[in-house]
This record gives sequence, C-alpha cells and structure tokens, in this order.
Amino acid sequence: MAETRFERLRELMDQNGLNAIALNPGPTLNYLTGLNFHLMERPTILVYVIGQPPLLILPELEQAKLSRSRIPLQAAPYSDDPATWPEAFRQALKPLNLGNLNIGLEPVRMRYLEMDYLQQAVPAARFTSASGVVGELRLHKDSVEINEMCKAVAIAQRSLLDILPMIKTGVTEKMLAAELTIQLLRNGSDSELPFQPIIASGPNSANPHAAPTDRALQTGDLVVIDWGARSNGYCSDLTRTFAVGDIDPELRTIYETVKQANHAGRAAGKPAANAGEVDQAARTVIERAGYGEFFTHRTGHGLGLEDHEPPYIFNGNPQQLSTGMTYTVEPGIYLPDRGGVRIEDDMLVTETGSVSLSDLPRELMTL
Amino acid sequence: MAETRFERLRELMDQNGLNAIALNPGPTLNYLTGLNFHLMERPTILVYVIGQPPLLILPELEQAKLSRSRIPLQAAPYSDDPATWPEAFRQALKPLNLGNLNIGLEPVRMRYLEMDYLQQAVPAARFTSASGVVGELRLHKDSVEINEMCKAVAIAQRSLLDILPMIKTGVTEKMLAAELTIQLLRNGSDSELPFQPIIASGPNSANPHAAPTDRALQTGDLVVIDWGARSNGYCSDLTRTFAVGDIDPELRTIYETVKQANHAGRAAGKPAANAGEVDQAARTVIERAGYGEFFTHRTGHGLGLEDHEPPYIFNGNPQQLSTGMTYTVEPGIYLPDRGGVRIEDDMLVTETGSVSLSDLPRELMTL
Repeated sequence: MAETRFERLRELMDQNGLNAIALNPGPTLNYLTGLNFHLMERPTILVYVIGQPPLLILPELEQAKLSRSRIPLQAAPYSDDPATWPEAFRQALKPLNLGNLNIGLEPVRMRYLEMDYLQQAVPAARFTSASGVVGELRLHKDSVEINEMCKAVAIAQRSLLDILPMIKTGVTEKMLAAELTIQLLRNGSDSELPFQPIIASGPNSANPHAAPTDRALQTGDLVVIDWGARSNGYCSDLTRTFAVGDIDPELRTIYETVKQANHAGRAAGKPAANAGEVDQAARTVIERAGYGEFFTHRTGHGLGLEDHEPPYIFNGNPQQLSTGMTYTVEPGIYLPDRGGVRIEDDMLVTETGSVSLSDLPRELMTL
Repeated sequence: MAETRFERLRELMDQNGLNAIALNPGPTLNYLTGLNFHLMERPTILVYVIGQPPLLILPELEQAKLSRSRIPLQAAPYSDDPATWPEAFRQALKPLNLGNLNIGLEPVRMRYLEMDYLQQAVPAARFTSASGVVGELRLHKDSVEINEMCKAVAIAQRSLLDILPMIKTGVTEKMLAAELTIQLLRNGSDSELPFQPIIASGPNSANPHAAPTDRALQTGDLVVIDWGARSNGYCSDLTRTFAVGDIDPELRTIYETVKQANHAGRAAGKPAANAGEVDQAARTVIERAGYGEFFTHRTGHGLGLEDHEPPYIFNGNPQQLSTGMTYTVEPGIYLPDRGGVRIEDDMLVTETGSVSLSDLPRELMTL
C-alpha cells in the first residue's frame, strides 16, 4: 500500500514537472511513511528527489521511530545544539545534488524554519508550491480511509447524543465544550481532535468561527455546535443547531432555509459535477430566501487526514468531483447580534452520486 | 498592558535593526493582540511596520473577532475565493510601502503559504528570522503570566494524582493517556493541551518521544508519563517515572541517577548563570554514573505560551538566565530495549535563585 502511495507521488511529481519535494511533519508525511513527528522548534524534513531514496533529516531523539516506517528511508539524525544544524543539513543534502532544482513544498505545513535550513544548505535551490501534487495525492480515499472516516463520524454523533441532556438554560458554552471533548475521547476519538468544539449560543452563534465563552444558555437562544472526532488520523466535522425554548420566528425561518440549503448542497454532489455547483446549489436556496448577504462563507471543504483540504466547495470552483472524494456541506445564515444557524454533513462521492456519512436528524430540535 | 507589549516589540525591533515584522496565527500574535486565530488554509497575517498602525489581513468570516483586540488594528478582510487573495494582499499592503524592507518572521510559525502571498504582493521584500525579537519579547514572565503557569502546573499535578490508581498491570498506554487527558480537561485545563500525554512503558520508555500504544503494563516495567496542562494559553510540562512491581536493579540505579541529575539541574538555575551551566549540572551527574551516552537529549527548554520556547537548556548555550524566565529541567537515561527514566520539573528564575513550580514527589513510586 505505502509503496503504491509513493509510486503515486512520483507520478504526480512527474506530471507537475517537479523533481524534488520536501515535507515536514504533518498528514502527507504520515500518509507516505506511516510516521508521526512533532512539529516543533527542531526541524524534521523528508526530502525526496526522483530516482534517489527518500532522506529523512531528524533530531537524534526521534530516531527510535524510524523502525516503524512503511518505506525504506535514509536517515540523517542531528544533535540538540542548533549551532550544528546548518552543517548537518549541508552534509545530509550533499549526496542528493539538489543544485538549482525547484523543491516542492506543502504551503500550509512548510515553515520558514525548515526552509531556512534547506536554503542555507542548498543556496541555489528554489521553492515552489506542491499543493497541487499533495492535494491530488490524498484526494481520493480508498476503502480503508473511508472506513476510518465513518468511524470518526460515528464517534462524533454518539458523543453529541451523550451531551444532549446537558444542553439547557444555565449551562455555559465552555462547560458544554469540555463535556463534548470528554465524550469524544471516551467514545474512542484519537486524542488529537481535528479541532476544538465550537459551542456558540445566542448572539455568539452569529459568528461562524466563535470560540466557547462563559456565556450561559438562555431561553430564545440558537446554539450552534460544530465538532468532530478523529479515527487513526481521519477526521469528521459536523454541525447541528438547536433552539433553547421558544425562539423568534425569524430565527425559525433561517433554520428552515439553512436546512433546505444543506439538502440542496448534499444533493448536488456527484461525479463530474464541479465543486462550484455544490456551492451554488446551497447558496441559491439562501439567496432566494433573501438571506444571501448573511451566508458569509463557502459551502464546504474537503476532509480526510486534515480537517480542511481539497476539494474546496466555493463559488465558481471548477474542480471536478469524482468517486472517493470526501467533503463537507455546511451552509449557514448569520444575523449579526441575533443568532446564526449552520447545518453540516460529511459527504462521499460514489460512482452514481454522493452519500452523507452523517445521519443525525436535521429537524430543528428544541431543548 | 498590551500597549506596553507592543512598545516593547518596537524597542526590540529597533535594537535588531528590523523595520517590519509579519506574524501569522500563534502565541506571539495572541500575546500582542489578545486575538486567537486558527492556523488554516486561509492566510491570516499581522504586518507591522514601525511608525504605521498594525495591519491585519484576514478571512472575512474571522472579522467578528476584531472587536476583542487589545490594540487598534487596521483590518483588510478577504473573501473565500483564493483567486482573489493575491490582489487582496497587494491592495492591503500597498499603503505600508514595504518596498525592499527586511520583513522579520517567526521561523517556527510562518509558513510558505503566507510567505508566498507576501512575496507576490511585495516582490522586492526579503525575509529574515525574527526569532531573536520574538523570543526576547516573551522571555520574562510577569506576575499574571506566572500565576497562569502555576495554575497549569496545579491542574497537571492534580490530574496525575487522579489517575494514579489506574496505573497497574493490564492497563494499556493508550487507556492511561485517554484517562489522563480527560482528567486534565475536568480539572480545568484549556481544551487545547500543550501536547498529547506520553505514556511509555517497558521497552517503549527507552524512546524519549514515544507515542502511547496498545501495550499493556507488565510487572517489571518502568512507566514514563510526560504530560501538561494549559491555563489561559500558558503551559505546564511535567514528567514522572513509575515502577510496576519489582524492577531490575539497574533500572533502579538509573532512576536514582536521574533523580540526582534533576536535583542538580534545578539547583543550578539562578540569575547570571547561563543555560549551558544548567545542562552541565544535570549532565555531569549522569556522566559520572557512567550513563552519559544514554542521556540523548538536552536538559530542558523554555516554557510559556509555547511548550517549547527560549531559553533552551542545552550543552554550551551561553544565554544568561534572569529573573522571570521559566524553563523545564528534564534529564533522562534511556537503555535501549530495556527502559528509560525521565524526571521533569518547571522552573522559575527568581531574584536570588530559582524555584520549582512543580512539587510532585520525585522518589521512585512502585505501583
């Protein structure tokens, strides 16, 4: 399997005219090697030049992990004194003849720290984004990966059901977030959650990226809960919105609108549709209801080893969907100072259409 | 307070000949502004040029957070379509006249993603490490910060005591790690832990950076537990090692040696001592006992908003300690395939010496 993944990387590098790639700790390094490294102040880099064995430059104290690699790796360990690192990088990289090659990097992972050591060791090398290669590499999930994503969805759904009885007036957003986190771990999530749960109540729910506060839930609130679990690295990412007691009729209206937009967005995913069409399907429902200006974000994003990855579901994105892609559909309406609604599911493109991996009820539940 | 922090940043930039700095989401941005942003596929950058108001380039949907900033910020929000971002960056940065300035970056935070947008918008700008400026900025903790670190230590210590009864034969490393995580959250840690707890038993304890596995504890094991909590962003980072039943006499010997090394390292910290002397004090104990080659890492690292930050406690580091600095002392001995010991405390440099913020017993406890 891993050999195949590396083969696939080489093909994609060929197609993208890339002879060398440098990866630091993160999901792609993990996907290719099975190894998990900390992202810390000590640089760890896998450098792969087509035709040569992959080289891993790493701190001495991480060496014990190498025996678990799925692929043969050359290792170049270095000691704790940063003064020795530039020379360690020079020696390690010399045999690779990086010369003035373009070195592909993962833009959301590679840091100035690692780039600076690479640049010092190979001054003529130039850097370029390998986001196309890396995005494509992990874009289509195989059955093992889909199975993990289903597990991550099941853990998340179960955990929300476990805290439902707590959602009532008086409990604070932070208390709910802590209890949801605990249930995610008890129900078997990897200890590194994809992200910290969002619990946003009342006016706070009008902020799509709110962090939990000490605000206590009140009658009349909408409560947006956005949470996920991780299973062997693979993420789920769900959102449901609840009502606390009686809510303003307009809040009920936006709830129904978002529910229909979520349905339309889910229904639009199929092979050969493009990502922009999924966005459009959801967005049109909200625009027709007159709330277009309050749907302030894209409809969704890809999901896998990262909680945000390709394909991104935004207006006009021409990227074609195909079997095995996984992404979220999460339209929302946010009325400033009053409240917001978001309903999010995790989708898998099948051979004939798409299915939602998540099936928690989407009807408005009053708690 | 925050005004003062920004003033201090300006002083340090002046001293380091730096006119501009660019910060992406992370502890330094948080320290200066009080704002917390996600590190994601959408770039968020604070650009500060001396003499001009700080500018924050950010996704539209994060705008609601700006009202909580401790300092006045110019904001340049952009929409969800990445095709519009290069132009959004160009427009936002134009008034700053970055020209061919050296832009300081935080090496362990700044990514190729953000650097690439900066570079496209200001092709003549050059990048340089601002790690000196940033490290110095946050190096001396004030009483509010120290109070948070004490809370983080108390939460961690209490949580370990809560799981002590579980540490016995049959329980797996992963089960202990999950339960310790749950107790950390129940006892009031921020939901974002400084790092996932390490539970390493038997031969696994010989790997200083082990991740918890499904291995069940057995009689004769050493069990290394390395864990921490976070309080309002500030970290604790502790390690204790336990024996499960009777252990090999040599394992007992290395335990006593590490305990003495931890004591010597803690005792060496005081104003005007340098970081290398603290390392040397701990290392000498282990070398004299004949285990020098099995102490494969530095003695410690600074601690604060990051779980690893300056001052780094490694052999030969000339950095002078001074009042208000905080760091770990964590010597270890690792006998391959047999077992390892590490004992770690969190230290604060006072006006006359140093104190340990952590006080869990350091005697070998057999469980």
